[in-house]
Amino acid sequence: MTHQHSSLFAQLAAILAEESRTPLYKRFAAAIKDAVRAGQLVHEEILPGEREFSQSLGISRITVRKAMDELEKEGVVFRSRGYGTQICSQFEYSLKEPKGLSQQAVLRGKKPDTVWINKSKIRCNAEIAEKLGLSNGSDVWQLKRIRYVDQQAVSVEESWVSTQLIADADDIGISLYDYFRERQILPVKSQSRVSARMPDEALQQQIALPANVPVLVIKQLALDAQGNPLEYSISYCRSDMYVFIAE
Amino acid sequence: MTHQHSSLFAQLAAILAEESRTPLYKRFAAAIKDAVRAGQLVHEEILPGEREFSQSLGISRITVRKAMDELEKEGVVFRSRGYGTQICSQFEYSLKEPKGLSQQAVLRGKKPDTVWINKSKIRCNAEIAEKLGLSNGSDVWQLKRIRYVDQQAVSVEESWVSTQLIADADDIGISLYDYFRERQILPVKSQSRVSARMPDEALQQQIALPANVPVLVIKQLALDAQGNPLEYSISYCRSDMYVFIAE
Repeated sequence: MTHQHSSLFAQLAAILAEESRTPLYKRFAAAIKDAVRAGQLVHEEILPGEREFSQSLGISRITVRKAMDELEKEGVVFRSRGYGTQICSQFEYSLKEPKGLSQQAVLRGKKPDTVWINKSKIRCNAEIAEKLGLSNGSDVWQLKRIRYVDQQAVSVEESWVSTQLIADADDIGISLYDYFRERQILPVKSQSRVSARMPDEALQQQIALPANVPVLVIKQLALDAQGNPLEYSISYCRSDMYVFIAE
Repeated sequence: MTHQHSSLFAQLAAILAEESRTPLYKRFAAAIKDAVRAGQLVHEEILPGEREFSQSLGISRITVRKAMDELEKEGVVFRSRGYGTQICSQFEYSLKEPKGLSQQAVLRGKKPDTVWINKSKIRCNAEIAEKLGLSNGSDVWQLKRIRYVDQQAVSVEESWVSTQLIADADDIGISLYDYFRERQILPVKSQSRVSARMPDEALQQQIALPANVPVLVIKQLALDAQGNPLEYSISYCRSDMYVFIAE
C-alpha cells in the first residue's frame, strides 16, 4: 500500500465498517466519489488494484469489481490498457454537437444544475447583433448563470438569444436547450472558439475558484439545421474540470 | 489623435517618407505588422479610422483602405461592425482539418519555423500504441519541437509516428505535414482534446513564457481518409497567442 493512499484506505475502511442496508459495493463506490469531490483523488490518478483494495479492506474482489464497474459507467473512473483504473474528474464536453451542458452531464450519469444570476431583456450591441444576424439594437435576452455538475460549480455562462425565440425568459428551467427542444427549436450545429486565461476576481468568487487555476473561455454560436443562429454564448469553465473534444 | 497612438503615427510617417519603389499601401501594411510584432499594437486593440490615418499621415483614404484590406486578408486585423478595425495577434488554429501549424501559418501570411529538440526511435508505451493502433512496444518516432510563428516561440509539441510511415526522421524539415504530403500520406481528419493548465518550469524556459500565462494543451490524433491513425501529438500552446476554432 502506498503512503499516498493510506488515508484513503483508512477512510474507506471506516465507511465500510458502518452499519447500513446499502450494498457494500455501492457504499464503496460512493466513498470513492466523495474522495474525488474532496480533491483527495485527482484527475488521472491511478487507483490501487483489485487485489490491493480487497486485501487492505477485507472485502471480496467481486465487490471491488462491481464498485469499479459502477464508477466506470458513471464516468468517475476509466480503465486503460497498461495503466489500470484511473480517476476521471474532468468533464468531457463535445464541441461538435450543441447538446447543451445539462444533457451532456445527464448522459454521463452526472447531475447538472443551474443557478440563474441574470435574465434581462436588453438592446444588443453590434457584436451580438452580428453573431445572431439581428439588426443593431434589437431586443435580446441576456442570460447569465452558474452551472453545477454533481453540486460543484464548474462554469459561468453568459448567453444572448433573440426575444423572437423566447417570449418570457422565466419559462426557462435548468436547461435552455430543453426549453428550445420543447418548442421544436433544434440547435444542431455550432461554431466555437476556445482560448484560456486566468480568472478575474469576480469569477473566482462566483465559482469558488482558486486564483491559480486557469479558465477555458468558449465562445460558441449555436445554429439550427438551416444555419439560423439561435444562441451566442461565452462560457468560463474551470480548466481542472473540463476537457473539450472536437473531431 | 489619441496619445496612445502618437508614437505609432510618428513611426508610420517616417516609414512612408522614405524613398521606395514599393507601393505606399504595402509599406503602410508592413509598418503595421512590424508594430504588432514589436508588441506596440496588441490583440484586439482598435486602430484609428481611415480618415484619421489619412489626415495625420497625408495619404489618401484609398491607400489606407487598400492596406487594411491586405492586413485583413493576412489575418493581422479584423473588422467588426461597431468596433472598427481591430488588431488580431492571436493565432487562430482550426481543429477541423489537420493542416499542420506550418500551413495554417503560411495561409495567414505568417512565417512558421520549427526547432527540433528531439527525434528518436523508441518502443511505444501502451497509451501511444492504443492511439496509433500499434501493438505495445512497436517502434515509433518520438518527435519534439518548439514552434515559432514570425520568430516568436508559440508552442512545444511532442508527437509520435510509426516508423512504418517515416524511414528516417532526419528527412523531416520544418513541417511534418509537408513530409507526409510529399509521400501521399494525407491527414484529413483529427480528433482533439483541448484543456488548459499552468506551464511548468521546463516549458516556461523552453518558450520564454511568463509563469502567469496558462497554456492550452491539445492532444490530437490525425487520421487519413480511411481512418488510419497517422500521428498522435500533445501540444502546449501559449494561451495569449492561440485561439482554437471548432465547427
